[in-house]
Amino acid sequence: MEFKDLAPYQDAFESYLLRENLEQNKPEALFTPVKYVMSMGGKRIRPILTLLAYQLFDRDFERALPQALAVEVFHNFTLVHDDIMDMAPTRRGVDTIHEKFGTNPAILSGDAMLIMSYQYLTRKLDKAQVGPAVDLFSGTALDICRGQQMDMDFENQDYVTLDQYLLMIKYKTAVLLGLALALGGVVAGATDESIQRLKECGIAAGMAFQIHDDYLDAFGDATVTGKQRGGDIIQNKKTYLWTKAYEIGGDRIRQELTHWYSQTDVDPAVKVRRILEIFQSLDIESYCRQLQLKYTDKAIDALNALDSSVESKQKIFDLMTLLLSRSH
Amino acid sequence: MEFKDLAPYQDAFESYLLRENLEQNKPEALFTPVKYVMSMGGKRIRPILTLLAYQLFDRDFERALPQALAVEVFHNFTLVHDDIMDMAPTRRGVDTIHEKFGTNPAILSGDAMLIMSYQYLTRKLDKAQVGPAVDLFSGTALDICRGQQMDMDFENQDYVTLDQYLLMIKYKTAVLLGLALALGGVVAGATDESIQRLKECGIAAGMAFQIHDDYLDAFGDATVTGKQRGGDIIQNKKTYLWTKAYEIGGDRIRQELTHWYSQTDVDPAVKVRRILEIFQSLDIESYCRQLQLKYTDKAIDALNALDSSVESKQKIFDLMTLLLSRSH
Repeated sequence: MEFKDLAPYQDAFESYLLRENLEQNKPEALFTPVKYVMSMGGKRIRPILTLLAYQLFDRDFERALPQALAVEVFHNFTLVHDDIMDMAPTRRGVDTIHEKFGTNPAILSGDAMLIMSYQYLTRKLDKAQVGPAVDLFSGTALDICRGQQMDMDFENQDYVTLDQYLLMIKYKTAVLLGLALALGGVVAGATDESIQRLKECGIAAGMAFQIHDDYLDAFGDATVTGKQRGGDIIQNKKTYLWTKAYEIGGDRIRQELTHWYSQTDVDPAVKVRRILEIFQSLDIESYCRQLQLKYTDKAIDALNALDSSVESKQKIFDLMTLLLSRSH
Repeated sequence: MEFKDLAPYQDAFESYLLRENLEQNKPEALFTPVKYVMSMGGKRIRPILTLLAYQLFDRDFERALPQALAVEVFHNFTLVHDDIMDMAPTRRGVDTIHEKFGTNPAILSGDAMLIMSYQYLTRKLDKAQVGPAVDLFSGTALDICRGQQMDMDFENQDYVTLDQYLLMIKYKTAVLLGLALALGGVVAGATDESIQRLKECGIAAGMAFQIHDDYLDAFGDATVTGKQRGGDIIQNKKTYLWTKAYEIGGDRIRQELTHWYSQTDVDPAVKVRRILEIFQSLDIESYCRQLQLKYTDKAIDALNALDSSVESKQKIFDLMTLLLSRSH
């Protein structure tokens, strides 16, 4: 992914994070894992969205850096606790916190990060904005817990409906992008209407993003994605593709889909090949494209409706295009 | 413990909690554990402190109910995550959350409770008070994480100094009582000076409370406390008594103290008897009394310095007396 025009935002964010000197906090055992996970990198999409939303209303985007950091610290908190729950040994190619430091430090450092995200959220914020910012943040954060719970619940269900799936990814993935954009508006003192549109834009983009992610797992070029093709299928993930196939497939296909996802002793390659065949036979690929397009259009409409300059909006369009056309 | 004069506060709190209908939140798997832990009861000391601090300035203490609930939900969040880390099977005589629902639900429901505590914190709060309330809350919450980390670190240290011990209990136990009282002042719109005094009062009372707790474990009447005498000693807890004995004991006593705490294969009864003998030989009991008195005086002074009626202060004195003279 290329971020050329976005480099000033990314650089400003990384410098701000460095200046925070997270590792100087005491006691060391609590903050070393925090520093570790915040230094793992990642694309910093969410904090950049906050800065880009701010610059829709005002040039001096550095004013939104604390809130951009709040979003990124919160996001990383969810990764730390989710990785414990999923027993994930690695993330972005390196050891997860619980793998490197142990489960107890991962729980407690995660808790500290959630609290720190509130500290960054209110930092240097105008008094009048603190209430709306905290309420927006808490509401979104609780929805994200709901999404994680639904995702875990899905593992024990034979099937999930398309509505359940869409609500789960809305909570688990999309609302955080909505928060990231909306917060930029809050810091800039935008109107409630503008903040609402930013939120809608982020949520719609997040939905499109997750559906694209599900699509890539099944139909992406493994040599480009760098991930094993069908990883979601091997893990019995009820993705958009699986859920859509279950919805439109007849009884025989439904039986086969639940059959493969309930088997513990099957050759993964055979399972992936057969499920991909089912997806192809139902042309699930074009449903993915259509739904992704629907959400992308929604995001674009919400952004277009905002009272701001075309050039400042273009940066957000560019980032969205980058995210939604990525092949890995 | 008797709460006669405090019954109106306790009743108001319990009704408010009931009206919240925590179990109606969705998804069920996320909020059933929240409802479960909040219904376990307990003495509700912290939320009552918030209501009592409010009535120092204004009669209508029900106005502080959301913030009282914020403190209690936060407190219960710490219990849920601490119990996972300590692998505690029961609390207040019933199964802990992770024991009843599993570790993953305990992690995630705990996270949800931390977020919910921020939601209650800002509920119906005057706009001008949201910023100070959130900053006070986050700062305290992060200190409590520090305290839990220090407590875990102590397990791997041969000894801890008295200063380290006092800082640990300040963070782990005392600052939350400080927050509980200070928040009552914040909601009532008290001056910064009054809020500061409430905080000092709560912290000092919390220090006295924890030292009394340590004392009871070693010298309380087991038939009254209902706990095994020397439970802390059996668990190798570096309590005030152990730390003080280590500080004032000579080399021989230090060696013996670390010896008993590093043995894995000893008769617990022999170990408890011998450590209690050491405590008695050094008259640790009177150090406990003195230090508890010092902190109690500090709490009383801070409260007396507040500009409020004697009768409204008396309720807080009564609760403190109840807590600090308890024999179990």
